[in-house]
Amino acid sequence: MAKLRNDALIKALLRQPTPYTPVWIMRQAGRYLPEYNETRSRAGSFLALAKNPDLATEVTLQPLARFALDAAILFSDILTVPDAMGLGLYFVEGEGPKFERPLRDEWEIRNLFVPDPNEHLRYVLDAVAQIRRALDSRVPLIGFSGSPFTLACYMVDGGASADFRLTKAMMYSRPDLLHQILSINARAVTAYLNAQIEAGAQTVMLFDTWGGSLTGSAYREYSLTYMEQVVGGLLRWQNGDRVPNIIFTKGGGAWLEDIAAIGTDAVGLDWTTDMTAARLRVGDRVALQGNLDPGVLFGSPERIRTEVQAVLQGYGIGTGHVFNLGHGISQYTDPDNVGLLVNAVHDLSRANH
Amino acid sequence: MAKLRNDALIKALLRQPTPYTPVWIMRQAGRYLPEYNETRSRAGSFLALAKNPDLATEVTLQPLARFALDAAILFSDILTVPDAMGLGLYFVEGEGPKFERPLRDEWEIRNLFVPDPNEHLRYVLDAVAQIRRALDSRVPLIGFSGSPFTLACYMVDGGASADFRLTKAMMYSRPDLLHQILSINARAVTAYLNAQIEAGAQTVMLFDTWGGSLTGSAYREYSLTYMEQVVGGLLRWQNGDRVPNIIFTKGGGAWLEDIAAIGTDAVGLDWTTDMTAARLRVGDRVALQGNLDPGVLFGSPERIRTEVQAVLQGYGIGTGHVFNLGHGISQYTDPDNVGLLVNAVHDLSRANH
Repeated sequence: MAKLRNDALIKALLRQPTPYTPVWIMRQAGRYLPEYNETRSRAGSFLALAKNPDLATEVTLQPLARFALDAAILFSDILTVPDAMGLGLYFVEGEGPKFERPLRDEWEIRNLFVPDPNEHLRYVLDAVAQIRRALDSRVPLIGFSGSPFTLACYMVDGGASADFRLTKAMMYSRPDLLHQILSINARAVTAYLNAQIEAGAQTVMLFDTWGGSLTGSAYREYSLTYMEQVVGGLLRWQNGDRVPNIIFTKGGGAWLEDIAAIGTDAVGLDWTTDMTAARLRVGDRVALQGNLDPGVLFGSPERIRTEVQAVLQGYGIGTGHVFNLGHGISQYTDPDNVGLLVNAVHDLSRANH
Repeated sequence: MAKLRNDALIKALLRQPTPYTPVWIMRQAGRYLPEYNETRSRAGSFLALAKNPDLATEVTLQPLARFALDAAILFSDILTVPDAMGLGLYFVEGEGPKFERPLRDEWEIRNLFVPDPNEHLRYVLDAVAQIRRALDSRVPLIGFSGSPFTLACYMVDGGASADFRLTKAMMYSRPDLLHQILSINARAVTAYLNAQIEAGAQTVMLFDTWGGSLTGSAYREYSLTYMEQVVGGLLRWQNGDRVPNIIFTKGGGAWLEDIAAIGTDAVGLDWTTDMTAARLRVGDRVALQGNLDPGVLFGSPERIRTEVQAVLQGYGIGTGHVFNLGHGISQYTDPDNVGLLVNAVHDLSRANH
């Protein structure tokens, strides 16, 4: 494959010098873009869109046509792995993802298997390869999965929940069963992310959406340990290029030092964590990704620029920062404000490099 | 009034010696209790129940009849103040609180007023007085309100929200208007809590449910500043007794030192904050309240006891700890597990005092 024309993201994740701070946005291919909604309505549903490599490629590239983003991220869902295990992922409008066959009985857990990505997740790998071709080495492609614990939350509770009480009940009454699920998930996610890397993903990210709902000790036991297993098993090189990885635990600001110690290249931060303090705490062990409050994009243009500057100055001088929101972009965001943000990051960050 | 027979809560909040660690539970009068559901169905709705002093007294006392709790907490809602301002509080089953007339226009904000509790919140003060009589000095009564910022979130967005985008939009485009609302709210909450104290509340708590959705700097500017104003205006003595106050910002673990510095007596912790670290950080400036994961109550009896012990040992030797959950109890909790928890706290904590 040809050399990346814009490798700022990869370099920043590896803490190598870049001319400016690279930026991408969680859920950058999403409902705030009219062209995304058009493609999605053509597909019929979110899942039909995610499972169609042609359409997934189309929406992955849409934000890049509008904004000077430094990366593309695979259009997919964090829950493809349990779907491939046979749990039956589906979506109810306004209620988020659900599983038709959540894990209710011990035998269902004993029967869980590590799906072969080349067999059960072919559509994702096809999309990755097709997006890489379409990108034509313009910017890197980010692959991803939900973390082992986050997958388990949905696999046990069957859908999003304010308290994931069935998962917590299992944790505090049958921890052996939860560990069994997590152990399978860690192996499945590792195989899946490695298959994405082999298909063309140039960096991969673990979304630990629900790790922040745990106590510190439960986080270490049920989420971080299994992310460490995944990170330990990930391919670090592909075709002579380093493939960095990123860990993002929403609400995990209290455990930054622990997260930075599992061997990952970069740690995502939500907006409640102060960037200056975070950098001091992790030192030069990892790069940091984040962490503008997505709510800032509802503000005035002047204020967006000011808040972008605050995050950039919070990180300070030097490499190792990837600009992002602290959470996925809201569907109600004005796309013009995203353009403004991307340009502000590029303009204002040059002074720090 | 007669002297409190069980003053362990008040003493612990003031960091005075107690024979054991006192315990109460957020939402202890709630849907996990069959007798609560019976009274609520008699009232017709949550709001009808909260607005009827006889029935509010009845449900406030229900958990005390079952468990050896060290406090009663007024049965009410965190949003009574904006309701008294005329915004029209109502509840939709499964969607939480909403306002009929959220603040949409600048003139509505300019017209906001500080309600006179004795006029507009009479039903709360009547309930407080009636509960005090019914308690007959058995345990102290806790009064409460939502924090100025948390009230504003609902007043602007009109109901619970994943991102409170209208509030964030105001924050990042018309901060002057948000400050106007917060300033009124701070005065209104102060007057309201003082009226509760005069009616008989022996300690008061501010629930800052949404402060944790802010960046650190926005938290200090929009939430903490106004809680400091409230705390500064609260009555500290009533009938010769100290009236301690408690601040609880859910998700506020990162800002503990700041919270402990506003003059409050005690700080509530959610379960994601480590109790040992929290105590080290606040020193002897404030008492700490919390912080068992409510999910532990879905666990086995042995595990509940182990986790209670972990929180108690996390705090360690000495006074200044009030045991609680890190969030309101789930409606799906088995009441027997609450009894087990309360007894475990009392048994296991004696060694620390």
